[in-house]
Amino acid sequence: AFLTRRLLATSAVAKGSFLQPLDTFPRRHLGPSDEEAQQMLQKIGLSSLKDLVKDTVPAGIVRAPLEAGNKEIGSEQAALAEIKAIASKNKVLRSFIGMGYYGNIVPPVILRNVLENPAWYTPYTPYQAEVSQGRMESLLNFQTMVVELTGLPYANASLLDESTAAAEAMTLCHAAAKNKKPLFFISNNVHPQTIDVVKTRAAPLGIEIVVGDHQTADLRKACGALLQYPATDGGIQDYTNFSAKAHELDCKVVMATDLLALTVLKTPGEMGADIVLGNSQRFGVPFGYGGPHAAFFAVIAPLRRLLPGRIIGVTRDRLGNRALRLALQTREQHIKREKATSNICTAQALLANTAAMYAIYHGPQGLTDIALRVNGAAQILATGLRQLGHAVADVSFFDTVRVDFPDHGAAEAVMQAAISEDINVRRLSPTAITISLDETVGRNDLAALFRAFNSCADPEFTPESLEAEITPGDVGSLRRTSSFMQQPVFNENHTETEMLRYIFHLASKDLGLQHAMISLGSCTMKLNATAEMIPITWPEFNQMHPFVPVDQAGGYTQLVQLLHHWLCDITGFVGCSLQPNSGASGEYAGLKAIQRYHQNNDQGHRNVCIIPVSAHGTNPASAAMLGLQVVVVPCDALGNIDIPALRAAAEKHKDHLASLMITYPSTHGVFELGIREMIDIIHENGGLVYMDGANMNAQVGLTSPGEMGADVCHLNLHKTFCIPHGGGGPGVGPICCNEKLLPFLPSHSIIPCGGDMGAVAGAPFGSAGILPISWMYIRMMGGDGLTKATQTAILNANYLAASLKDHYKILYKGNTGRVAHEFIIDLRGIKTSCGISETDIAKRLIDYGFHAPTMSFPVSGTLMVEPTESESKEELDRFVEAMVTIRAEITAIEEGRADKNNNVLKNAPHTMADVSADVWDHPYSREEAAYPVPALRLRKQWPTVARADDVYGDRNLFCTCDPIEVYMEQS
Amino acid sequence: AFLTRRLLATSAVAKGSFLQPLDTFPRRHLGPSDEEAQQMLQKIGLSSLKDLVKDTVPAGIVRAPLEAGNKEIGSEQAALAEIKAIASKNKVLRSFIGMGYYGNIVPPVILRNVLENPAWYTPYTPYQAEVSQGRMESLLNFQTMVVELTGLPYANASLLDESTAAAEAMTLCHAAAKNKKPLFFISNNVHPQTIDVVKTRAAPLGIEIVVGDHQTADLRKACGALLQYPATDGGIQDYTNFSAKAHELDCKVVMATDLLALTVLKTPGEMGADIVLGNSQRFGVPFGYGGPHAAFFAVIAPLRRLLPGRIIGVTRDRLGNRALRLALQTREQHIKREKATSNICTAQALLANTAAMYAIYHGPQGLTDIALRVNGAAQILATGLRQLGHAVADVSFFDTVRVDFPDHGAAEAVMQAAISEDINVRRLSPTAITISLDETVGRNDLAALFRAFNSCADPEFTPESLEAEITPGDVGSLRRTSSFMQQPVFNENHTETEMLRYIFHLASKDLGLQHAMISLGSCTMKLNATAEMIPITWPEFNQMHPFVPVDQAGGYTQLVQLLHHWLCDITGFVGCSLQPNSGASGEYAGLKAIQRYHQNNDQGHRNVCIIPVSAHGTNPASAAMLGLQVVVVPCDALGNIDIPALRAAAEKHKDHLASLMITYPSTHGVFELGIREMIDIIHENGGLVYMDGANMNAQVGLTSPGEMGADVCHLNLHKTFCIPHGGGGPGVGPICCNEKLLPFLPSHSIIPCGGDMGAVAGAPFGSAGILPISWMYIRMMGGDGLTKATQTAILNANYLAASLKDHYKILYKGNTGRVAHEFIIDLRGIKTSCGISETDIAKRLIDYGFHAPTMSFPVSGTLMVEPTESESKEELDRFVEAMVTIRAEITAIEEGRADKNNNVLKNAPHTMADVSADVWDHPYSREEAAYPVPALRLRKQWPTVARADDVYGDRNLFCTCDPIEVYMEQS
Ligand SMILES: Cc1ncc(COP(=O)(O)O)c(C=O)c1O
Ligand SMILES: Cc1ncc(COP(=O)(O)O)c(C=O)c1O
Ligand SMILES: O=C([O-])O
Repeated sequence: AFLTRRLLATSAVAKGSFLQPLDTFPRRHLGPSDEEAQQMLQKIGLSSLKDLVKDTVPAGIVRAPLEAGNKEIGSEQAALAEIKAIASKNKVLRSFIGMGYYGNIVPPVILRNVLENPAWYTPYTPYQAEVSQGRMESLLNFQTMVVELTGLPYANASLLDESTAAAEAMTLCHAAAKNKKPLFFISNNVHPQTIDVVKTRAAPLGIEIVVGDHQTADLRKACGALLQYPATDGGIQDYTNFSAKAHELDCKVVMATDLLALTVLKTPGEMGADIVLGNSQRFGVPFGYGGPHAAFFAVIAPLRRLLPGRIIGVTRDRLGNRALRLALQTREQHIKREKATSNICTAQALLANTAAMYAIYHGPQGLTDIALRVNGAAQILATGLRQLGHAVADVSFFDTVRVDFPDHGAAEAVMQAAISEDINVRRLSPTAITISLDETVGRNDLAALFRAFNSCADPEFTPESLEAEITPGDVGSLRRTSSFMQQPVFNENHTETEMLRYIFHLASKDLGLQHAMISLGSCTMKLNATAEMIPITWPEFNQMHPFVPVDQAGGYTQLVQLLHHWLCDITGFVGCSLQPNSGASGEYAGLKAIQRYHQNNDQGHRNVCIIPVSAHGTNPASAAMLGLQVVVVPCDALGNIDIPALRAAAEKHKDHLASLMITYPSTHGVFELGIREMIDIIHENGGLVYMDGANMNAQVGLTSPGEMGADVCHLNLHKTFCIPHGGGGPGVGPICCNEKLLPFLPSHSIIPCGGDMGAVAGAPFGSAGILPISWMYIRMMGGDGLTKATQTAILNANYLAASLKDHYKILYKGNTGRVAHEFIIDLRGIKTSCGISETDIAKRLIDYGFHAPTMSFPVSGTLMVEPTESESKEELDRFVEAMVTIRAEITAIEEGRADKNNNVLKNAPHTMADVSADVWDHPYSREEAAYPVPALRLRKQWPTVARADDVYGDRNLFCTCDPIEVYMEQS
Repeated sequence: AFLTRRLLATSAVAKGSFLQPLDTFPRRHLGPSDEEAQQMLQKIGLSSLKDLVKDTVPAGIVRAPLEAGNKEIGSEQAALAEIKAIASKNKVLRSFIGMGYYGNIVPPVILRNVLENPAWYTPYTPYQAEVSQGRMESLLNFQTMVVELTGLPYANASLLDESTAAAEAMTLCHAAAKNKKPLFFISNNVHPQTIDVVKTRAAPLGIEIVVGDHQTADLRKACGALLQYPATDGGIQDYTNFSAKAHELDCKVVMATDLLALTVLKTPGEMGADIVLGNSQRFGVPFGYGGPHAAFFAVIAPLRRLLPGRIIGVTRDRLGNRALRLALQTREQHIKREKATSNICTAQALLANTAAMYAIYHGPQGLTDIALRVNGAAQILATGLRQLGHAVADVSFFDTVRVDFPDHGAAEAVMQAAISEDINVRRLSPTAITISLDETVGRNDLAALFRAFNSCADPEFTPESLEAEITPGDVGSLRRTSSFMQQPVFNENHTETEMLRYIFHLASKDLGLQHAMISLGSCTMKLNATAEMIPITWPEFNQMHPFVPVDQAGGYTQLVQLLHHWLCDITGFVGCSLQPNSGASGEYAGLKAIQRYHQNNDQGHRNVCIIPVSAHGTNPASAAMLGLQVVVVPCDALGNIDIPALRAAAEKHKDHLASLMITYPSTHGVFELGIREMIDIIHENGGLVYMDGANMNAQVGLTSPGEMGADVCHLNLHKTFCIPHGGGGPGVGPICCNEKLLPFLPSHSIIPCGGDMGAVAGAPFGSAGILPISWMYIRMMGGDGLTKATQTAILNANYLAASLKDHYKILYKGNTGRVAHEFIIDLRGIKTSCGISETDIAKRLIDYGFHAPTMSFPVSGTLMVEPTESESKEELDRFVEAMVTIRAEITAIEEGRADKNNNVLKNAPHTMADVSADVWDHPYSREEAAYPVPALRLRKQWPTVARADDVYGDRNLFCTCDPIEVYMEQS
């Protein structure tokens, strides 16, 4: 293979002006070289990429060439220099604004070896448990930490942010009350951005929101009540009596809280909370101008099966050993679809892992020390401000000091004085300021704050002189007395050497893009290039609090504008919002914009959303969250939406038709020819069209949602635009829309942006901190490069399909026999012939060092393969070799040459312990089990557990580290 | 174990002012917590670290407390902020100075995943081949690349820098001529720093250096002639005739060259060179203000067994599979001692790996394209300068353009104008300037240069307008026609995805500090903390050419001054030079200072150097390189130097005594009581004392060479001061000395520094680019922290010795029964009893997931164990468990319960392929082979080859990737 590549290699210098940078990015991003692409085209019977596109993309929807990212592309270095210039327009001050976002110190060993390590940031959600034990162990640590700190027994593995977590709590309360108590109370001392998001989410479900003083609230009709602890103005109080009262009225108590505070404060669990949530960001995750951060979410035992999001659970494997895996998958929208109460899919795994590692690094005592120090500093601050004559709130507090002023002018003067000291504090109201201290506070910060509150002059006292007067952690009866995080993992890894080894040990168990292709259909596991990742850990981007005055955020403003511009070019739309933190969140926002549009046109009664049966589970779930009635339309035998059925449904619901949700190319991996017709049908019947952009990697530069006539779409920047999946998040799910919907884009009450939707996330630009990744990708590829990426993604998929078609049934193809950027392998015949299922094949692929394609979506009994443009011909050939060899293994079973049950597939994957065990009682050999193709002897990522037992785990739900007693018995 | 730790954990907040940063570094660096230290002290029968020190360090040499790094230490963040302030005093201009150092682009995927990845930077030299196949594969790539580009058939795996490589070439020529032709010719067109270093090295060996025009040189008495290609002024010419002439006179031809140039120029091999060397820095390694960079060194076949430094060779393993290992170890100074011609030990493995990865990433065509582009830009420059009326040298050139001026003033004006354009060029002579372009050059650089040469005005032409006139790579008959680097590895990994996977694949084969303790005695494998590593990739440090005007290097000046100050405090000396690039290089410099001292006192005849038999092989080799006569003194039964014998030797050689070389604590791991007496003896007999600082980790803060009365010592910053070993380098070997030797420290002819020794390295401050690591370590630990590190290192060693003493014989102890920071396990009795050797035990340790301790140094048939202070009690206990279990395995052999040959030790290490093979013909079980202790089932780094066959490999010396024909046959 390499010889050909070598012989055909051509000189880049010869091609153009050699004064241009030589090392442009597209050739590093695209897997096949031009020469290999030719060979692959030959295999599929074509002679150029242009022909392939012509053969694949319907003529009627071909778009004009992209402008995005400019046509003139430079080197990776040039792009880095450009984004550095943008970054430098952010002014990084110290931010003591609080509101759920706090300065902190990312331990360097975690920064470098988790956040900046492809082994941690490239994998997908741990769908294949056997090659994901490392990050699941880490997520189990996260869950355990949340359980221990909140005092509630069940926690999930993260949600998108604190605000959406609060909204999830509301819907959980609503569901727990069987939808019979459509009122949700929110304390007026909850963070304002959270109130906004909950309100956005409540309205379409008909849930009434009452915001008020919790002490005087009437909870009789409430399914739940949300409190903040510590409150948004810093005060802390005991909610025990409130909880008791609420429970008497069958009202669930939800507390939004702060993990650091909980190391020294009485737990929500001890106060009777039913649901506890918050942002784990201050555990070692940078501000990032609002995200990504991992929200946490914990519930009492009776609510555990209503817990939204992913949960890691403990089970056993085929050999009886402990194994972790995603628990309670049956709750998920993939199964419940329009009956789901949550659409959460991508969450914040990488950031949850970071927070868990931070907790491990510090341990319970270290965290407590940090909390005590922060509280001590806050007490010094309060003491000093009182001595300066300020009206400091006379309440207990953890890290946040509230000062009230006689008038607006006095408060304003202090705000300005603080800024002149390079410090941002929070304007709580026209006449009140809060200062939220954090781990990074030093005596100089306190001295600067004293000056800011003292007409810019140093007072007579110093931080040190006040220190003697106070006792850190003195919060009276609210002081935590219960111990926490006694498990070994939180108590054994406090030196850097031990931490480093633990991080590498966990990573060594997982299969990521640094090992092999991960051909998860619908997930677009392309290269996450290092140059794209570099800017996100620059302080200019990651040290910005989301609510700093906008004049400090010039860099982000420019970044956002450029991305809006480019994404609109790519989608063929005019409006863009970067606020949604995931694809599902984008779906929600897009549908909501359509809903607002109809309302604005006095068509608020339009509540029918048509969704094809092949849609991703998040689609119906999102529709349901908006109170829409989902009408499902079938597909025909070729995998295309049944247009007559669609027309019938649209016409039938014509008076109530709100929208169509459609994925393009279809989730079956086909460019449906009827797309314009379908869109027209919806428009003719008064609806608008939502396009799910999960498959945008097959569109960029060739066609666009706008070109096809859709009204709004979301993009998954974590698919098409190179944001790494982080083992299950972060994600960014921007929506783009046409002029009709422009007025209704997501907005934000603190940082003006968008239209009039209200907020769908806590931060105005969602996970702004990782937008540089997509910016870099688009800038380095340029319009031509992006288009070529799309062509190559389609080429790679068609090459694979062509190479496998004689061995497996390829389920759906377009009318020209081409697939799009992914395709489905139908295994139902094999199941019938010999009992081998898609799961068996998926697990057997692990023995070949591969991560399985997507299992049973969109069609059960199938595998959906999406190679992406970043995979080389060699890697594709390696996959073909594996699949063809597996087919032979199946044939042996079909033909009775191998046992029906005791065979390499049913027993897959095989671990090292398995194949080196003294006893071997299989009719096949150890070597057949471990090394079915010779190359595996040289390179193979091994599974660390045998097949995980899902049923056992869900029956015996266990989703924390072992309780401390287990370790005590052992030692 | 963790329960105790938890229960005893105390609050850091309670201890001091909580306004101080909480998270100070020492507790992250030190393995045992205070509580564990107590338990460990108990095990060895003591109750405090103070008692341990009292028991271990002789009273007479106890020093006053350290000042180093200040007593007040801050957090890691504070230290990073401090060094950032220092860094910002470096002014980073574009540097087109050349002279062997060139700007380049480090591909981000290599930067992050090699240079910044502990898997690559923490391991030691690949002494244990079976867990080092990854980095050896990479070094083999480096060797292959050098062979392919230079056209010579044998290359080593790096030397310290181009200048010392040239000196090594000289001694090789001298040795090849059987020392009978003591003249070495150097072309006056060689880089001046190289001429300096060669001169320094020549003088003490009595080799005469003649510098002149090679075309008129008289080579009759010359053993070798050194040429630069391209020459230092940029000119290139064909040396074929020169070589022929030299060979007729039995004079070897040495060419210092440039790898990038060789992609387009006729090779030195084709011109008849016998030895080819140079700096590989421009292959993706930053300037770093002079280092670290990997020099390369290649020879013709007849010279291959004289090749200095490490060579990776191909051999086979126990099972007949291909395996790599260090070849021709018998040539090394460890064996040859005072008969060695080179003392090179630590080299530049990490940088060689980086350069090799860069070559892989670009491949032959990519490298050629870069070279063509650079040459094209240089041609544009020359064309433009001619059009501006400048006297551009009328010669062929690759990247360097020479301009001569009528007078000094005209040249000076251009130098200043260039600086005003933020560009450094080289002042070749008072009336000549050269400009050396590199990969980073862009049209703006050319435009700026044109202005600088045009009285600050833009000329009428532009770089683009000149482009049409030239043909990149047009160097006439000197154009390379031979192909190169056709092996697959250089042609398959050009996308970032493939590169990333290759990097991770190789790393997965190696055992590094991210996996387990590496208790290599004398190597001090302590934590290389991330915070220490962060500054070295800041542009302020790594984008500085070593020869920029000193007023641009304010940051480095301050860094060097502070390190001088701290290292003098630590060693008890007054003078310091950071120039030597390794410990061995420091030895050479220190001995040379003593030599210069004697010469200066009219005692130039003093040429006897006393060295104890237990000394490291580099000691006698260094002495030999200075022409000293080595007199070996024995040790007594307790491992101490035999003082009467020392006295006798000193008195015998009293009139010629130059020096004593001594390691303290001794290489036997003992604080010898007689140290002051020994030093006095030497002084009384007219000699000075050189202290080998390899064991400084047992001295820092407790005693010092100065305190003991020594005159000079070297330090290994890559041992005691946290510079990572990089798999065999980089290193930094500064020397510190008392007032007597101060005038004789290493100097530099381009950047003034030191005394009058001349240069021992090409760059004034050696590997300046990694000095921030040691700066950070000292600053973050502070004097008290450093002292506690030493105490803990001694504690860890004594704890291990105490835990193992009932199972193995501990060879040497001090008179109180204590060891120092390392100790020797004597296995000779076991060898006698049952034939099991230290190698068998070392290889068996691999099965337990450990890297073996140092084998057979300083005593053959032993293992020397140095745990360092960074290892936790848990890790030490894990090692004890392994060693004790191995002892039981040995007992089984001794008692006849296990076979004498077919046993777990003789067959160790066992690979995965081995234990999962279908055939298993051992009397022990697979599980005994693979999982001798249960914890290994949860965590184990596996060997990837079985025991490597050294003898076979040396007999069939092969040190490149397979020749292209092999791959052609295979495909
Ligand atoms: C077709 C489709 N739609 C929506 C989503 C949801 O996106 P996210 O996981 O970012 O919420 C996915 C996720 O893979 C998907 O495949
Ligand atoms: C005692 C001793 N001296 C000198 C050296 C040489 O140091 P370097 O490898 O840095 O040249 C070593 C190396 O391990 C050593 O152990
Ligand atoms: O993650 C997905 O559901 O595809």
